[in-house]
Amino acid sequence: MHTKITKLFNIEYPILLPGMSLISVPKLVAAVSNAGGLGILASGTMSQKEALDAIREVKSLTDKPFGFGASLMIPGAKENVALALEEEVPVINFSLGKGDWIVEKTHTYGGKVIATVVNERHALAANRYGVDALLVTGHEAAAHGGDVTSLVLIPRLADIVDIPIVAAGGFGDGRGLMAALALGADAIAMGTRFASTQESPVHGNTKQAILDRSISDTIYTTKFDGMPCRIMETRHAIEYIQQTPDDADMFSTALRAGPAIMSAIVDGDLDKGVQLIGQVQGLVEDLPTVEELVQRVITQAQAIRSTLPN
Amino acid sequence: MHTKITKLFNIEYPILLPGMSLISVPKLVAAVSNAGGLGILASGTMSQKEALDAIREVKSLTDKPFGFGASLMIPGAKENVALALEEEVPVINFSLGKGDWIVEKTHTYGGKVIATVVNERHALAANRYGVDALLVTGHEAAAHGGDVTSLVLIPRLADIVDIPIVAAGGFGDGRGLMAALALGADAIAMGTRFASTQESPVHGNTKQAILDRSISDTIYTTKFDGMPCRIMETRHAIEYIQQTPDDADMFSTALRAGPAIMSAIVDGDLDKGVQLIGQVQGLVEDLPTVEELVQRVITQAQAIRSTLPN
Repeated sequence: MHTKITKLFNIEYPILLPGMSLISVPKLVAAVSNAGGLGILASGTMSQKEALDAIREVKSLTDKPFGFGASLMIPGAKENVALALEEEVPVINFSLGKGDWIVEKTHTYGGKVIATVVNERHALAANRYGVDALLVTGHEAAAHGGDVTSLVLIPRLADIVDIPIVAAGGFGDGRGLMAALALGADAIAMGTRFASTQESPVHGNTKQAILDRSISDTIYTTKFDGMPCRIMETRHAIEYIQQTPDDADMFSTALRAGPAIMSAIVDGDLDKGVQLIGQVQGLVEDLPTVEELVQRVITQAQAIRSTLPN
Repeated sequence: MHTKITKLFNIEYPILLPGMSLISVPKLVAAVSNAGGLGILASGTMSQKEALDAIREVKSLTDKPFGFGASLMIPGAKENVALALEEEVPVINFSLGKGDWIVEKTHTYGGKVIATVVNERHALAANRYGVDALLVTGHEAAAHGGDVTSLVLIPRLADIVDIPIVAAGGFGDGRGLMAALALGADAIAMGTRFASTQESPVHGNTKQAILDRSISDTIYTTKFDGMPCRIMETRHAIEYIQQTPDDADMFSTALRAGPAIMSAIVDGDLDKGVQLIGQVQGLVEDLPTVEELVQRVITQAQAIRSTLPN
């Protein structure tokens, strides 16, 4: 299945793994790229040595294109991006900051740049300073989607920018892929869905919690990490955000969230941990391999296309 | 363009006008039905005499199928529905209550029943007691969408019910129609978009405000009418919800909202009024006739279908 995004990134299918801290690790990134999509390595919590090791590990696991993701507001992120540029990672993805300085350097070695945005203003700015594509995150997404839902955000941004769009937030199957393409996107990114695969490093307990929960079992709040953020609704998550003072500053709130995220992903302890999750968890009903999942999404999308009415 | 919904309601296009108080009046309802869609008359604020007059006015303006909509929690709504049944209105649409008693009576004269739902539980209940279709309202909708966005809610409900789905919330063009069909719906309902047409009774000032505002200029709050409700963000709307006490009861909050809604729609006074509006307002850029709009949506949807990748 070919779109502007598959051509831009030289991949087989218009399906991306977004960079999710502690989840988009080399094994999962390489699995997605090997399956014909594009895996984006998350560098959020990494030191420079860890970032370099991770990039080289991905390279050892796949000869397909992959991406390097960085949240520019995190201390050390710029240095990590600089490393990725030295390593000539094929795709650089940045969020939560201005990445104009990344564009020229990436293009020098033939790499591509994709900016993560949640609104019109940031989309127009990134388009203006020359990124190659946008990753557009709707309200239904895990973690930091904006207020506007994918259904409205995608067509609006498609109207005002002239670069391809990867739609993220609410996507987990072939129905979503075909809907995204109809709305004007050229690919989807699946976070919650790829987190629920065999190759995902998410602890089995937490994978089981995803299977058990419905589309309604998420909370969108500023009281988890200081920004508007979507998390899995659990007894502990409700208590956690109740304990966050109304006047807490963003920095201390974010610091407190780190260990909670790690407990959920690494230890599978949802009595201490909080899992970032999208509403699409309610569409996740099994834990396939990445290869099985990618093939399933494409096959379903193709089947839907053939039945759409004229 | 034919789907399960066009067959069920005997209409030409899978496009509905939902019942919106003070907006879905006979002239607009008939215009949508005459254009090949299905207009649903809103009875929310009507006395029995007004409801009967409105039904007869629609009948005088079109010989096409149309619907009668009622929010069952509003006092007098059940009596109004009884009137609509006597008048053998082709489609009965109810929301905010249990409509099991409506089903058998409607089927007696060959009418159809569509229940408005925002979550899995209500969808399963309505399916069980025999409604013919669901109108599914996503988070992005004007007024009372639920927490879950259309992108996730539609495919999930399509998985768990065996009746056709009309998708509402976030739909305003052919891209949205094709996306809805890909997600498993059989039609769309467009509220904000039909409110922004020549035949719509919404005051010109308020129509202009819709044209001026972006996808981000809405507020989703319980402090407008006591239920989670999406309204247009204006200076006055912000002040209005700030003045609602944290402990206000739902009934008094709802009573206060009525005059504000009327000011916005009837008087076009957004310094006193508050307009219920969906995020899709940011995709509204003109005020076509209903006929022009319906043709545009269908033509765009067909064009998109032909360009979707294999």
